[in-house]
Amino acid sequence: MLHADRIVLAERPKGQPTPAAFRLEEFELPEPAAGEVLVRTLYLSLDPYMRTRMNDAPSYAAPVALGEVMTGETVGVVERDRSGRFKPGDIVRCYSGWQSAFVAAAAQLSLVDQALGPVSTALGVLGMPGLTAYAALEAIAKPQAGETIVIGAAAGPVGALAGQLARLRGLHTVGIAGGADKCRYVTSELGFNVCLDRRQDDMASQLGEACPNGVDIYMELTGGQVLEAVLPLMNLHGRIPVIGIIAWYNASGRPEGADQLPDFMRQVLYKRLHVEGMIVSDLAELRPAFEREVSARLKAGEIVYKEDIVEGLANAPDAFIGLLEGRNFGKLLVKI
Amino acid sequence: MLHADRIVLAERPKGQPTPAAFRLEEFELPEPAAGEVLVRTLYLSLDPYMRTRMNDAPSYAAPVALGEVMTGETVGVVERDRSGRFKPGDIVRCYSGWQSAFVAAAAQLSLVDQALGPVSTALGVLGMPGLTAYAALEAIAKPQAGETIVIGAAAGPVGALAGQLARLRGLHTVGIAGGADKCRYVTSELGFNVCLDRRQDDMASQLGEACPNGVDIYMELTGGQVLEAVLPLMNLHGRIPVIGIIAWYNASGRPEGADQLPDFMRQVLYKRLHVEGMIVSDLAELRPAFEREVSARLKAGEIVYKEDIVEGLANAPDAFIGLLEGRNFGKLLVKI
Repeated sequence: MLHADRIVLAERPKGQPTPAAFRLEEFELPEPAAGEVLVRTLYLSLDPYMRTRMNDAPSYAAPVALGEVMTGETVGVVERDRSGRFKPGDIVRCYSGWQSAFVAAAAQLSLVDQALGPVSTALGVLGMPGLTAYAALEAIAKPQAGETIVIGAAAGPVGALAGQLARLRGLHTVGIAGGADKCRYVTSELGFNVCLDRRQDDMASQLGEACPNGVDIYMELTGGQVLEAVLPLMNLHGRIPVIGIIAWYNASGRPEGADQLPDFMRQVLYKRLHVEGMIVSDLAELRPAFEREVSARLKAGEIVYKEDIVEGLANAPDAFIGLLEGRNFGKLLVKI
Repeated sequence: MLHADRIVLAERPKGQPTPAAFRLEEFELPEPAAGEVLVRTLYLSLDPYMRTRMNDAPSYAAPVALGEVMTGETVGVVERDRSGRFKPGDIVRCYSGWQSAFVAAAAQLSLVDQALGPVSTALGVLGMPGLTAYAALEAIAKPQAGETIVIGAAAGPVGALAGQLARLRGLHTVGIAGGADKCRYVTSELGFNVCLDRRQDDMASQLGEACPNGVDIYMELTGGQVLEAVLPLMNLHGRIPVIGIIAWYNASGRPEGADQLPDFMRQVLYKRLHVEGMIVSDLAELRPAFEREVSARLKAGEIVYKEDIVEGLANAPDAFIGLLEGRNFGKLLVKI
C-alpha cells in the first residue's frame, strides 16, 4: 500500500479564505487497475479560479465538495502504467488536484513534450495560463499593430505572456500590477511600455496619460477598480476578453453603493464594445499553434517568464491565500 | 423664399423629457446651391436613441446643440434637384431631423426603392430598425435552429422583426412587452411562442418557465429589469447583442443600490457570454441581403409590421415622450 498526502476542502470560506478552509490528510493510494496510471506529483499549479470552486454556487464547473480534494492542475512523473499508453518516467499533466500522488485513468493524462521547455512551464508559460493569454488574444482580442492594450495583473502568468505577445505584435502595452517591484519587472523584463501600480490613488488618471490614443483591448483579469478605470478610455470597437475577475472572487452577494451596470452597458452600446468570457478548455484547438509560437520565442529569448515556487504540499493553502492577496510574484507553483 | 417648420432642442432634459425641451420654429429654407437638393419631408421616424443625443455627454455621436434641429431620419420627396442625381418626385431617405422640408447635399440622401414596400417602411421594417434587427441576428447572435431567443421590447419595430426572423430560422421565441394588448399582438400576429408582460411582478419567474432550455440569445433593447431577469437564464456561449438600453436612457449618474456589475461579469466569465454593442451604421454592408430577405418575406406574408402614425410635426414632442414611456404601439412615425 502506498501512502500519499492530499489537501481537502474543510469548510467553505466566506470572503477571503483562511487556513481553516483546508485540511491536510494522509491517504492510501489504490493499486492502479487496468487502464490506469500511478503518478507522483512534481508540481501543483495554484490559480485564482480555484477560489470560485470553493463556493457552493455554480461557476465554470461544479463546486469542490466538502471533504473532497481541492481541484488543480499538476505535472507529475509516471510511476506505474497499466494502460500501455505511458512508460515510467514520462511527464504527464493532469487535473489531479492538491495531492502528492494519484491514480487516474490514462485518458485523463496528457503527455508533456519536454522538448518545449522545463517541466514546470507546462503549468505556466507553456500551460494553462499561457494558452489562456494566447487564446484571449487570438480568438477574441485580435490585436492589430499600433493598437493599445491594457492588462490588469500584468505581472501574473496570463498577463505577462499576453503583454509580451502583444508587444511582439506591435501594440502599445500598458500593464497594471500591485507594487513598485512588480511594475519594474513588467517594464524592464517583460518590455511593456508602461506599468502602473494599482495601489496608487491616482491610478485612473495615470492610466489616461499612459493611453494617449485610448484603449483598444482590455484584458479583464481583475475586475474591480481596474475595470472601472479603463472603461471610459475604451475606443470604438474595443475588445474585452473576460478571463478572470479576481477582485470579485471573494465577494458574495452584491456590493452596496452605486450600480455600475447601466454605465457599463452604455459604454458597450455607444462604443460597440465586444465583451466575451473565455475559458481555456473551450479553446484547446489552439494549443498546437500556441506551443509552437511560445516555445520558439522562449528559446529565442523574446519571451521570459517568472515562477514563484513554494516547497511542500503543506504550504499550498498559505500560498493560495497569498495569491488572492497578490503576494506571489510570478507563476505560483507548489513543488511536491 | 420657402417657409418650413422645424423642432429644435430648447433645453436639455433631466430624466424624462417634458414638452419644454422642444421648440417649434418657422424658418426660411435657403435656395438649393449647385449639388444640393430641396426635399419635402413625408415621414419622420421617432426612435429611442434620440434621447441619448439630448444629453450634453458623448453617446454614439455628438449631442444635439441647444437651438439646433432635433436629429432624426426621414423619408421625403424631392422637390428641386441641383445635383443631377435625383428627379422631382423621387423618394429619398436622409438624417435631416425634425423639419418639414430641408436642403441637403445630394450625398446625404439615399434613393428609396419603392418596389420594396410602402414609403413609410423605409423608416421601419425596411429601414433602420429593420436592419438593426437583421444585423443583430446575422452579425452577432448567429442563431441556430432549436435555440431560444429572448427579446425585450418585442412589440417595437426592432424586436418585432428580430422575433419573426428568429421564428423563421427555427428558434423558440420569447418576447417581453408592456401590457396585455402588446403581448397578444406579439404572440397572435408576430407568431412568438410566448410573450410576457414586463409589468407583472413575477415576470422573472415567468421568464424561467417560458425558457425551459435556458436562453441562447438575448436581444438587449431595454436594460433594467429585463436584463436582470434574463442573465441567470443564459446558457453557455450565449450571445447578447446590445442594441438599446431604453430603461436607462433617461437616467443620469449611477443608481444607488446594489452594484450589479460584479454579478454581470461573473455570468459573462462563467458562461463565456458574448456581449457586443452594435449600431446599424457600422453594418451598412448587410443592407442588400437584408432588403432582399425582408422585402420578399413581407410580400409572402411571412412577416408583418405595425406602424403608429402621428399627424403633424407639432405633435412630434408628445409622441417622442410617449415612446420613452412605451405608449406607442408599432413603429412610431410622424406624418408631416
